[in-house]
Amino acid sequence: MMRTHYCGQVTEALEGQQVTVSGWVHRRRDHGGVIFIDLRDREGLVQIVVNPDDAEKFAKAEKVRSEYVLKVIGQVTARVPETINERMATGKIEIVASDIEVLSVSAPIPFQLDDKTISEEVRLTYRYLDLRREEMQYAMKTRYKVTRSMRRYLDDKGFMDMETPILTKSTPEGARDYLVPSRTHLNKFFALPQSPQLFKQLLMMSGFDRYYQITRCFRDEDLRADRQPEFTQLDIETSFMSEAEVMDLMEGLAKTIFREGVDVHFDYEFPRMTYADAISKYGIDRPDLRIKMELVDVADLLQDIDFKVFAAPAKDPMGRVAALRVPQGGKMTRKEIDDYTKFVSIYGAKGLAYIKVNDLAAGIEGLQSPIVKFFPDQVMEILARVGAQDGDLVFFGADKAKIVNEALGALRCKIGEDLGLIEQEWAPVWVVDFPMFEMDEKQARLTAVHHPFTQPKATTEEILNHTAPHQMLAKAYDLVINGIEVGGGSVRIHDTNMQAAVFKLLGISDEDANEKFGFLLNALKYGCPPHAGMAFGLDRLVMLMIKRESIRDVIAFPKTQSAACLLTEAPGIVDDQQLIDLDLRFRKPAVPKS
Amino acid sequence: MMRTHYCGQVTEALEGQQVTVSGWVHRRRDHGGVIFIDLRDREGLVQIVVNPDDAEKFAKAEKVRSEYVLKVIGQVTARVPETINERMATGKIEIVASDIEVLSVSAPIPFQLDDKTISEEVRLTYRYLDLRREEMQYAMKTRYKVTRSMRRYLDDKGFMDMETPILTKSTPEGARDYLVPSRTHLNKFFALPQSPQLFKQLLMMSGFDRYYQITRCFRDEDLRADRQPEFTQLDIETSFMSEAEVMDLMEGLAKTIFREGVDVHFDYEFPRMTYADAISKYGIDRPDLRIKMELVDVADLLQDIDFKVFAAPAKDPMGRVAALRVPQGGKMTRKEIDDYTKFVSIYGAKGLAYIKVNDLAAGIEGLQSPIVKFFPDQVMEILARVGAQDGDLVFFGADKAKIVNEALGALRCKIGEDLGLIEQEWAPVWVVDFPMFEMDEKQARLTAVHHPFTQPKATTEEILNHTAPHQMLAKAYDLVINGIEVGGGSVRIHDTNMQAAVFKLLGISDEDANEKFGFLLNALKYGCPPHAGMAFGLDRLVMLMIKRESIRDVIAFPKTQSAACLLTEAPGIVDDQQLIDLDLRFRKPAVPKS
Repeated sequence: MMRTHYCGQVTEALEGQQVTVSGWVHRRRDHGGVIFIDLRDREGLVQIVVNPDDAEKFAKAEKVRSEYVLKVIGQVTARVPETINERMATGKIEIVASDIEVLSVSAPIPFQLDDKTISEEVRLTYRYLDLRREEMQYAMKTRYKVTRSMRRYLDDKGFMDMETPILTKSTPEGARDYLVPSRTHLNKFFALPQSPQLFKQLLMMSGFDRYYQITRCFRDEDLRADRQPEFTQLDIETSFMSEAEVMDLMEGLAKTIFREGVDVHFDYEFPRMTYADAISKYGIDRPDLRIKMELVDVADLLQDIDFKVFAAPAKDPMGRVAALRVPQGGKMTRKEIDDYTKFVSIYGAKGLAYIKVNDLAAGIEGLQSPIVKFFPDQVMEILARVGAQDGDLVFFGADKAKIVNEALGALRCKIGEDLGLIEQEWAPVWVVDFPMFEMDEKQARLTAVHHPFTQPKATTEEILNHTAPHQMLAKAYDLVINGIEVGGGSVRIHDTNMQAAVFKLLGISDEDANEKFGFLLNALKYGCPPHAGMAFGLDRLVMLMIKRESIRDVIAFPKTQSAACLLTEAPGIVDDQQLIDLDLRFRKPAVPKS
Repeated sequence: MMRTHYCGQVTEALEGQQVTVSGWVHRRRDHGGVIFIDLRDREGLVQIVVNPDDAEKFAKAEKVRSEYVLKVIGQVTARVPETINERMATGKIEIVASDIEVLSVSAPIPFQLDDKTISEEVRLTYRYLDLRREEMQYAMKTRYKVTRSMRRYLDDKGFMDMETPILTKSTPEGARDYLVPSRTHLNKFFALPQSPQLFKQLLMMSGFDRYYQITRCFRDEDLRADRQPEFTQLDIETSFMSEAEVMDLMEGLAKTIFREGVDVHFDYEFPRMTYADAISKYGIDRPDLRIKMELVDVADLLQDIDFKVFAAPAKDPMGRVAALRVPQGGKMTRKEIDDYTKFVSIYGAKGLAYIKVNDLAAGIEGLQSPIVKFFPDQVMEILARVGAQDGDLVFFGADKAKIVNEALGALRCKIGEDLGLIEQEWAPVWVVDFPMFEMDEKQARLTAVHHPFTQPKATTEEILNHTAPHQMLAKAYDLVINGIEVGGGSVRIHDTNMQAAVFKLLGISDEDANEKFGFLLNALKYGCPPHAGMAFGLDRLVMLMIKRESIRDVIAFPKTQSAACLLTEAPGIVDDQQLIDLDLRFRKPAVPKS
């Protein structure tokens, strides 16, 4: 028996008992002829005391170094009052060792576990050591608590955990697939799934009624910050439930995992906001509602002024002129305003006009701004509309709506953080009534905002005869928390004719549709139940819950941003024979084997 | 609200209440001007009665066909006594419909759900319909019950569900890897994992102490009966537990899932048998103990006879001569014996000698056999040794031990089934003390029976100085039920020197070892805890539990034996541009796109 208790669970309740603990040497100190060892395991640290009463035992303890693995038998003993450590669960006791066994030695480790300055490259190369750090232990434990909590919640609601294939066919998400060459079917490839979308819909058609899976998804995306080639999704699908019922179900799930995972209690209904409102007030479909500032439209007041920078977008149906009031922003320096101007230029904004409100009562004289001279007659009404008060600053965006939304939307969050305007720790919100389609301007055709199996808020008749399909709404919903899209879902089309109408609007030919997802379209013919579903991005969700900056910090063995594993050195070079077996060769000569 | 109750759960307890049910039309009958519909959902069937009281409702019901999806509102009403169906959970009631809504129509389905003669090809092509069949619903529900039960059992024991990568590097299982070309690292490939073996060991080195995962594994094997390119494994690993503790833990798990999954109660300890005993008595390391017949060695009695067929293998150290007594097998016809002779030839046996025991008391005269004349002096002792009784038949195998074991081992099971000699429904057994190495005769070198990280029952010193390494035992264990290997595991090496010694015996150079699993060898240096683990093959286990013949019957979307998906037509042809992006081309011209 290598253990009677975890190190971190040996407390004063065990005083006087003999225990056996096993773990890693976290620290060793010699003090007054006695050796003290902090022994560490998954549950925490405990102090081991080795007295010089037995020469052999003491000699073993003297040889012990950091990260050695020991088994210690000893008696739980109260510490003397002056050495009690109230911050440790085991801080009132120590284990007086009667026997020590070195189970494994350790070479000096390449970095100290409590060193916070280690580069991510080193951490990922020695991931097995990095994972010993308290913060990584916490991250992985919380991730596990969250998935366990999700499973139990869904089990209790009658959902069945079911597996779908990993070696499969391209799915319609639109990102690039990872391909897997087949030795049995030469010149053909499996694709790794971007999601189980089609399979979970098939499971509904098979009558399983309520499905869930915590499953790996794959996207061979161009490298962007904080994406992983493989990521994990909680995926659900249900038959015979409405949009509102699915949202209620998943809101309950979100509340449960926050409560059980990180002890956060949401004792209110999550607000629901339309996509149109989100864009109008926050410039974005995943608003961070911890920050109260809002974008306010002022175009109607500025259409007839001479100042073209404002008047032109104010008159443009695709344009937008919006104001963003920064409470007590009047203290901002010229330098700070310049920096924000540079910041919004990332989003294509050509400038960042502002008004400092020094003294409202003094009228236009009480304002400080390079632009008020262009609309002296309108400025007070604008300030009234945004609710400006003395000491505030008001920023303006005027351009194509897309640019204004992105620029002011991002500025709003940045200022919110910079000026400490985050007013609550957690701000969940449902965003609903998404548009069904969007115009792909490059290709001048409609694309599906969610995916082409999403049900529009319209009948088949209305879809076919719609005069402005880009205004059609979808039965789609996203859950957003603190500006992060935690999950999204939709009601699916369960009618062959409606599906055909949507494909027609999307310009997808029957032939194309059949080649890509003919099996789903076939299945639709044989009695398809109304069904709907949702997926939560697990990595991002856990990252949000424990307030980490990167999803790599909540994945045990992540890839780097260049989609490589520093630990295993994957991807790697393969033998020529393996390629021959697959009937493949490189177009260019292979890089030399290093 | 599309449902207040599942169809299958509307019982007499709800009599008099109004309910709403939704589901598929399983059957429709018109009888005496009334329409009866059996409506089906995940939980079962309920009878809907549509009276001709309302013309519109009745007209709707008349249009209904098999597999239409309906929503029905109606009152739960007791059936008249003569129409009660005791075999149905809902057989005492019917729902008198007040409103019917057709949610989806269905084209005539290509086969009847209760037709048992449908080919597997059709079933897999229309898997979404096949899955509606009661037996497939039962299979998938049981599979879910089993995984849920596994998870809860391990959760309760402090195991943490943790994810390991799917896009990774080759692992050391030895089967062929599926490769995934990388667009970001041209000319390099990820491999899909054959198991999470190395990662789970790293998690132990990271201090997570107890890990589990129900995870997908991949092997690009040559096509054999009942293998899948992707399969699912319950994978566990634990630190600081002995071989015996891991076996106890997993025996508890097996008992729990049998109890909770299929209501089978094992109220005894699983027997434990050494590998040597299993081979000796059953010819195989996964003995089917439902059958009591055993192989009995008789070589010692036959070494000096003139009959070379027996004497030569009896004297050969690599040979074996064994007898298999078939109780009351004397009734076997010549034709049956010929068929068994053909059967053992599959395993390389050159013949199948036998003795029919007609009358033991009559001595050699009471025997019927083409061979007893060759060893008249030994035959009675042989019969005594195998416990022969009047009416029995005794088969003999004499050849290289490998051939005798495989032939008589398989014959034993075949006869057991043919003659109804299966004496119990379930026969679990632990097989332990596996050899650490086996001799690969083609390559004339040792290979690891389990894998090279398994701990031998020897010290590093003993490993290095062993004179007969193929006799060395490993701390490895398999759980076998009814002759099926349900799972296997081992204690791992946690010491760098021992690992090096094993690699040396296996003829793996330092360079090779480092290239293949250098990260694991590195990790071993920094304080590796003693650890051990096990994996259960989920597909095969569930197949066994519900007594199906193929693992395809317990996988929602399986591949065929030629590793293709008939439903989605994966693997498929990809665009040239996708290959260009991966810097790949075919060696031979691609097959034309059909």
